[in-house]
Amino acid sequence: MDLNKLLFDKTKFSLMAGPCSIESEEHFQKTATYVKEAGAQILRGGIYKLRTSKDSFQGLGLEAYELANKVRKNMDMPFVTEITDPRQTSALAEVTDIFQVGSRNMYNYDLLKELSLGDKPVLLKRGFSATVDEWVKAAEYVEANGTAKALLCERGIRSFDNTTRNVLDLASVAYLKQHTHYPVIVDPSHATGRRDLIIPMSLAAVAAGADGLIVETHPTPENAMSDGFQSLNPEEFRELTEKLKGILKLFNRELF
Amino acid sequence: MDLNKLLFDKTKFSLMAGPCSIESEEHFQKTATYVKEAGAQILRGGIYKLRTSKDSFQGLGLEAYELANKVRKNMDMPFVTEITDPRQTSALAEVTDIFQVGSRNMYNYDLLKELSLGDKPVLLKRGFSATVDEWVKAAEYVEANGTAKALLCERGIRSFDNTTRNVLDLASVAYLKQHTHYPVIVDPSHATGRRDLIIPMSLAAVAAGADGLIVETHPTPENAMSDGFQSLNPEEFRELTEKLKGILKLFNRELF
Amino acid sequence: MDLNKLLFDKTKFSLMAGPCSIESEEHFQKTATYVKEAGAQILRGGIYKLRTSKDSFQGLGLEAYELANKVRKNMDMPFVTEITDPRQTSALAEVTDIFQVGSRNMYNYDLLKELSLGDKPVLLKRGFSATVDEWVKAAEYVEANGTAKALLCERGIRSFDNTTRNVLDLASVAYLKQHTHYPVIVDPSHATGRRDLIIPMSLAAVAAGADGLIVETHPTPENAMSDGFQSLNPEEFRELTEKLKGILKLFNRELF
Amino acid sequence: MDLNKLLFDKTKFSLMAGPCSIESEEHFQKTATYVKEAGAQILRGGIYKLRTSKDSFQGLGLEAYELANKVRKNMDMPFVTEITDPRQTSALAEVTDIFQVGSRNMYNYDLLKELSLGDKPVLLKRGFSATVDEWVKAAEYVEANGTAKALLCERGIRSFDNTTRNVLDLASVAYLKQHTHYPVIVDPSHATGRRDLIIPMSLAAVAAGADGLIVETHPTPENAMSDGFQSLNPEEFRELTEKLKGILKLFNRELF
Repeated sequence: MDLNKLLFDKTKFSLMAGPCSIESEEHFQKTATYVKEAGAQILRGGIYKLRTSKDSFQGLGLEAYELANKVRKNMDMPFVTEITDPRQTSALAEVTDIFQVGSRNMYNYDLLKELSLGDKPVLLKRGFSATVDEWVKAAEYVEANGTAKALLCERGIRSFDNTTRNVLDLASVAYLKQHTHYPVIVDPSHATGRRDLIIPMSLAAVAAGADGLIVETHPTPENAMSDGFQSLNPEEFRELTEKLKGILKLFNRELF
Repeated sequence: MDLNKLLFDKTKFSLMAGPCSIESEEHFQKTATYVKEAGAQILRGGIYKLRTSKDSFQGLGLEAYELANKVRKNMDMPFVTEITDPRQTSALAEVTDIFQVGSRNMYNYDLLKELSLGDKPVLLKRGFSATVDEWVKAAEYVEANGTAKALLCERGIRSFDNTTRNVLDLASVAYLKQHTHYPVIVDPSHATGRRDLIIPMSLAAVAAGADGLIVETHPTPENAMSDGFQSLNPEEFRELTEKLKGILKLFNRELF
Repeated sequence: MDLNKLLFDKTKFSLMAGPCSIESEEHFQKTATYVKEAGAQILRGGIYKLRTSKDSFQGLGLEAYELANKVRKNMDMPFVTEITDPRQTSALAEVTDIFQVGSRNMYNYDLLKELSLGDKPVLLKRGFSATVDEWVKAAEYVEANGTAKALLCERGIRSFDNTTRNVLDLASVAYLKQHTHYPVIVDPSHATGRRDLIIPMSLAAVAAGADGLIVETHPTPENAMSDGFQSLNPEEFRELTEKLKGILKLFNRELF
Repeated sequence: MDLNKLLFDKTKFSLMAGPCSIESEEHFQKTATYVKEAGAQILRGGIYKLRTSKDSFQGLGLEAYELANKVRKNMDMPFVTEITDPRQTSALAEVTDIFQVGSRNMYNYDLLKELSLGDKPVLLKRGFSATVDEWVKAAEYVEANGTAKALLCERGIRSFDNTTRNVLDLASVAYLKQHTHYPVIVDPSHATGRRDLIIPMSLAAVAAGADGLIVETHPTPENAMSDGFQSLNPEEFRELTEKLKGILKLFNRELF
């Protein structure tokens, strides 16, 4: 697959899917299999997890490099995973196709500068309360060297209301598509924090002009080591891709 | 037209449109004509305007009652206008079909109690920073007497970012559709405060599950007495209704 | 007592205290007695309570007029209570010395216009997410007629953090004292929603330049019909006034 | 001076002061001289500046190590400066006595883990929209190894109102003093972003229970390379320390 064509061609739509954290080879392989079958082109999975509490599960770390690499090769799917420290760059570059920078690190300019020196695309999540202007300026750090390209990922902003985990700001997506050159990916899982809102928000993201989605899914969400409450099960994930087909056509985009 | 069927039947979609403020009979008649022609079923137009500054234009007030009534009868369109004081109830009931309660008055429970005694539908806008729970509980004040029905109107919430005037919270729409019985109308004009984002956000609202839209439009937005920067001109309004047709079909709803 | 001198003279400091809601004559008389003894000059007590749920206690309403009046006369203390509807104005003016407009009604300009026609001071609470500019402009509605004066009341703004009920914005107090002519009263009870933070925040309010405090207290907070969790008991209230004496002296103000 | 005694003894009060950025040896020496004379015990000064735009002044970086070290030795004052990348740790430890972690890096747990391995105190600024709970849990990363200690720094949180740069949350200070063991330092410069509010907010911070302040000052703020609008000039800085003396005495703390 031509990853660059997929990410930067406006007639395509990128669907990135997989578990919050990679839990084991079997778990990751199983997930990769059903997400590819359902239509996702890019595999996601956390190796390093940034957790509010030092006592929460922090991801498998180094232990997951080998198995992530094995699964992405087995499946012939590009892989996106989060980088949390500039010192991980060269080793992680061996196993990932896209670097994800999480919301907690959007302002970590030393990390962005390090990534700007490489040539892999950087999926830059919006900070918890970053303005659109700050977010775009962070993307400029990524593209400063002229080799790496930035993808912006809207994942909800913090508000006074806890009905949803965050507030998905789809108007920022429409704004960015009209006023900047960046592809915009929407993360309905972290934005809503509720399994029952992921499908409608995914469809709304397409209507707002998004270029892709990054979605959490797990073979058995109730057993997930992290974020199970916002992960689709395989059946729900297939329902999502079915509904995406319909609306993407209306917006002249294709998933397959 | 059967207003109740339009508002409460899930195969219908309500398009409420008109100027922010009624400026004159000619202005209102002209606007009503093109919005009906383009497909709107319900006419909006402010008689009383709540303005941050006491020195801003406050609406025509009593002067507009007669002309609003004349235009809605000419056009045979139901009319929705804002009520700002319980003492306006009986006189305003003569000219309006739906009472709008603005964001500034969502917590004005004395006003809501007064409206609950009547039988006209109440379009209840979400407060600037109201939680979904507070908003739903405000709707319960409206329906407490069993005669009036509430329509919830999502119009954006306040945030730290001024890229858009407010942050349109479409996940609240999907949440309300799944967890309450209220119809949900979206106001993309106040939510974004930007003419260039109204069409994409209208389409996204449909995809999120909205039952209708309330949109500001003006024959010549650059001359509007209020909110011109977020009002569609006639051509843009027609573009909106054209695009709505496509997406509504996908969601099994009809505008016409 | 000269109420105007107390409220508008910068060498004075106003302490308004009493229960969230007036529950009975005995309850109100008892509270008034100990708050006056401890040093409060103005009595507060809710007759009408605006509650998120229609099923919560809404205040005694008309039933409390007579008893409130009796207690304020017994105690020879000015009384402040909330008005929630312009139709209450003339009757409520018989029993209150200061009208309070709650956060939920800060944008209720019809109510503010009605109060502007009288000559009683209006304690205007800041809206849940009102900007300082909107709040000042609301005060201009109150003073538009030249007879009523506005007192601004900072009571915390809404945020993403629920450690405290709201975020007490003391910098707004310092800002208002430097840039406007309005007296500024701080409400540490609603701002923090926690009994354990009321005393430190009261002292901090004085240091920031506040002209007064409005504090909730109850003879037995654990039995209060509303807001018990943020009401000081009599002993805590005396501790507050003792500590106020020290810091007020440093800022050249007097309570007694 | 015994830095640990100063930072962790509740009868002391820490005043950290200096420029936003170190601009030159002469500039830094000059500032250090007047801040020490006025009563500050700890010198602040940015070597690495995290800036929203890649094109803004990013601090002198390596160039400033030598001169910062020279000035702190000349003045015999402990020095606090910001660390932005775990790879700076060992070199920066040679010149600083306290590591500052900025708001943008509060969630940068890899940096916090690196600092936890050392034994220097870490001044941990609150993230732009971090809850108190997230902030305390970030401090637990710092103290996880048992050698480094955390100081929490409240510097304002993000809101919908731009009257001040951020909203100084002094109730969080009172809360932390009652419910955790951490010293709490307040930064009135970044919190307000306005020179005219720094003195009242400093006094309010003392009243709320703060253990110290970190304040920006510049010999000629109008010429500062960054943050001049929120930096006190030498005369204003002396006014601050004079006023601090009075209020600190009331709270049984001493600066000198």
